[in-house]
Amino acid sequence: MGLFDRHAGLLDAYRDVRTTGADPFQIRMERVLSATEAVINGRKTLLVGTNNYFGLTFDPSCMEAAIEAIRAEGTGTTGSRIANGSYSEHVALEQEIAEFYGKKHCMVFTTGYQANLGVISTLVAQGDFLLIDADSHASIYDACKMTQAEVVRFKHNDPSSLEARLRRLGDRPGNRLVVLEGIYSMLGDSAPLKEFIDVSKKYGAYVLVDEAHSLGALGEHGRGLCESTGVLDDCHFIVGTFSKTLGAIGGYCVSNDPDFDILRVTVRSYMFTASLPPSIVASVRQALRVVKARPELRTKLWENVATLYDGLAARGFKLGPEHGPVVGVHLPDRSTAIGFWRAMLDAGVYVNVAVPPATPNGVSLLRCSVSAAHSKEQLAHMIEVMTGIGRQMGLLGPQLRAVAGNR
Amino acid sequence: MGLFDRHAGLLDAYRDVRTTGADPFQIRMERVLSATEAVINGRKTLLVGTNNYFGLTFDPSCMEAAIEAIRAEGTGTTGSRIANGSYSEHVALEQEIAEFYGKKHCMVFTTGYQANLGVISTLVAQGDFLLIDADSHASIYDACKMTQAEVVRFKHNDPSSLEARLRRLGDRPGNRLVVLEGIYSMLGDSAPLKEFIDVSKKYGAYVLVDEAHSLGALGEHGRGLCESTGVLDDCHFIVGTFSKTLGAIGGYCVSNDPDFDILRVTVRSYMFTASLPPSIVASVRQALRVVKARPELRTKLWENVATLYDGLAARGFKLGPEHGPVVGVHLPDRSTAIGFWRAMLDAGVYVNVAVPPATPNGVSLLRCSVSAAHSKEQLAHMIEVMTGIGRQMGLLGPQLRAVAGNR
Repeated sequence: MGLFDRHAGLLDAYRDVRTTGADPFQIRMERVLSATEAVINGRKTLLVGTNNYFGLTFDPSCMEAAIEAIRAEGTGTTGSRIANGSYSEHVALEQEIAEFYGKKHCMVFTTGYQANLGVISTLVAQGDFLLIDADSHASIYDACKMTQAEVVRFKHNDPSSLEARLRRLGDRPGNRLVVLEGIYSMLGDSAPLKEFIDVSKKYGAYVLVDEAHSLGALGEHGRGLCESTGVLDDCHFIVGTFSKTLGAIGGYCVSNDPDFDILRVTVRSYMFTASLPPSIVASVRQALRVVKARPELRTKLWENVATLYDGLAARGFKLGPEHGPVVGVHLPDRSTAIGFWRAMLDAGVYVNVAVPPATPNGVSLLRCSVSAAHSKEQLAHMIEVMTGIGRQMGLLGPQLRAVAGNR
Repeated sequence: MGLFDRHAGLLDAYRDVRTTGADPFQIRMERVLSATEAVINGRKTLLVGTNNYFGLTFDPSCMEAAIEAIRAEGTGTTGSRIANGSYSEHVALEQEIAEFYGKKHCMVFTTGYQANLGVISTLVAQGDFLLIDADSHASIYDACKMTQAEVVRFKHNDPSSLEARLRRLGDRPGNRLVVLEGIYSMLGDSAPLKEFIDVSKKYGAYVLVDEAHSLGALGEHGRGLCESTGVLDDCHFIVGTFSKTLGAIGGYCVSNDPDFDILRVTVRSYMFTASLPPSIVASVRQALRVVKARPELRTKLWENVATLYDGLAARGFKLGPEHGPVVGVHLPDRSTAIGFWRAMLDAGVYVNVAVPPATPNGVSLLRCSVSAAHSKEQLAHMIEVMTGIGRQMGLLGPQLRAVAGNR
């Protein structure tokens, strides 16, 4: 038996998907024209399936900052922070993020995945309890595999479920760490954070919030759900990413814990990986300045969210539970979702298709993501294309509602 | 008890190190001047502690390629390859790496850490056996935590130890995957790869070689230890990184296995992380072209290795077992190593200090790394500085040899 034989079923399914046309997992952008347009299959295509919430990947000031950094300090650092040293700019970025949140400490990671993986798996150990939302991101689930702590799942966005789990732990010794997300990546819904914090406080649990999709989008200053729900001081750890609103790559964790820096010599995904290249650090620092200086981008993002969400809802699509920069469109099953996705692509609109097992509760979705860089015309066109295909496939109206109601 | 209390001992030790002077884990390069010089503590410092083996971080063609990519396609992709699509350049880079090795398939990862973590932990599963060298890199050890396979360690660079382990497994069902490294990062020694391959073949085991430190450095075309030992065709999987010789960040895995692409929908560290930004992909592609076009860089690297290794050995330092771009200098204990490291830094030479538990067999080392970009004068200066400090500390001659002999 070969190494790949146990994937035989998956391999067959994957081949099936591929032979029927475009492979949703290997889409190729032949040329990227802007934050909202790319050439795919030789055709100019509207992008409504990125995480480019402020459109900053093409912000001239961010691009120039990256270019200057390459000229000044080269293409990479060739080593890890602890073994091969930090560049001044790594340290400056950490200070700026800490200040942005009003926290004392910040550690920057080379990817957001490694931030969650390393921080979460290290904060709790044998004898501790890690409590995670059932719909947590893969990086959080992978941290569960790395830690020796006992992992306890509670129902998605359900503080009473968390409370039941904490109550059941009773007096068992060991720290409790509760992990939540600001905005969930598939359906765009936010955690009822205040309620979660109340429960966590009652049971003496630490709270970590991953603001990957909410940085920039939520809160008066764009600090995320912790800010918009007024609990910044109650969150012990905030994790986030540079690869969405900030338009580059990397992750971070901030905290007020006086011993936080010990993570620099205990978190393996920080210690044993090359640090972020100068260009990435520079564009992220500039993107953070833009987030602070231009709140109108957040306003524009939410106007666009309302346009897309309300527009699709009015046409009869069943969507995620609330407005958010991620708009998840429910479809009855995997093959319908893939067919719909392909028809959208053929019509020049790129969204993401999300099917089991990558989705919560086995739902099949088209995942649309909104950017402040989208024009009103682009979103109107997107709604028109999607509605046309939905009608053609007989998916709008009572039929879809019935299916979605089964959730 | 707080989250950080279990690190109390480490925290105290760490505070001790910090209060006595510069913190080796938080060195700050105030300005990086070239591939071999930076300003540290206000002083121009010679860098002999990076992994910049060809000095390509400041190669003008690599820098220009990165700059052009930012102008053309922005600062980042804001999404993962499978959820948010690949840019043409990701695909081109994969093809170019596959061609470089003469292999059919290549997958590119956002970090080398995530390449090892994801590939190794996914290739073997429950019922399989993962056989690793005792001195394996942290990313390989972390993959051991992620996989459900049974992990078996064999003695460092000892094919007979591997054979004993494989023999002991007998007829137990399940695949065997042997993981090796081209050059080990602490002492710069290479695996006896041909002998390991012979043993693996005899017991029907798959072989994966991590060429992180050997890409560019070893082999007629710089393909690494697999090439220099003539076993490219016998290695089922080769993993490597973009953050050393290629001067940027990222990782890859190549293979001829016809089902290799299934890893794109099974390896979580590939699926659930944002893809490499255009600038990184562009500079890596150009760096690979430089590696192929300029074999004289490899020649220069090995001349420099001989200069440093032989120079230090002649002065009485106890070094790693063989010539290599990493030159590990044995010191008697942790505090001597940290003191020596600090004296080097004060004298304007930056090397790495490596102490337990980060080192094999509890050794304390100064880890020096050679670059093709080092001049003869720089290396002569480095040897002079190191010898002066070694003499001043009473470490050269019989005393050090006796200590090192205890290994």
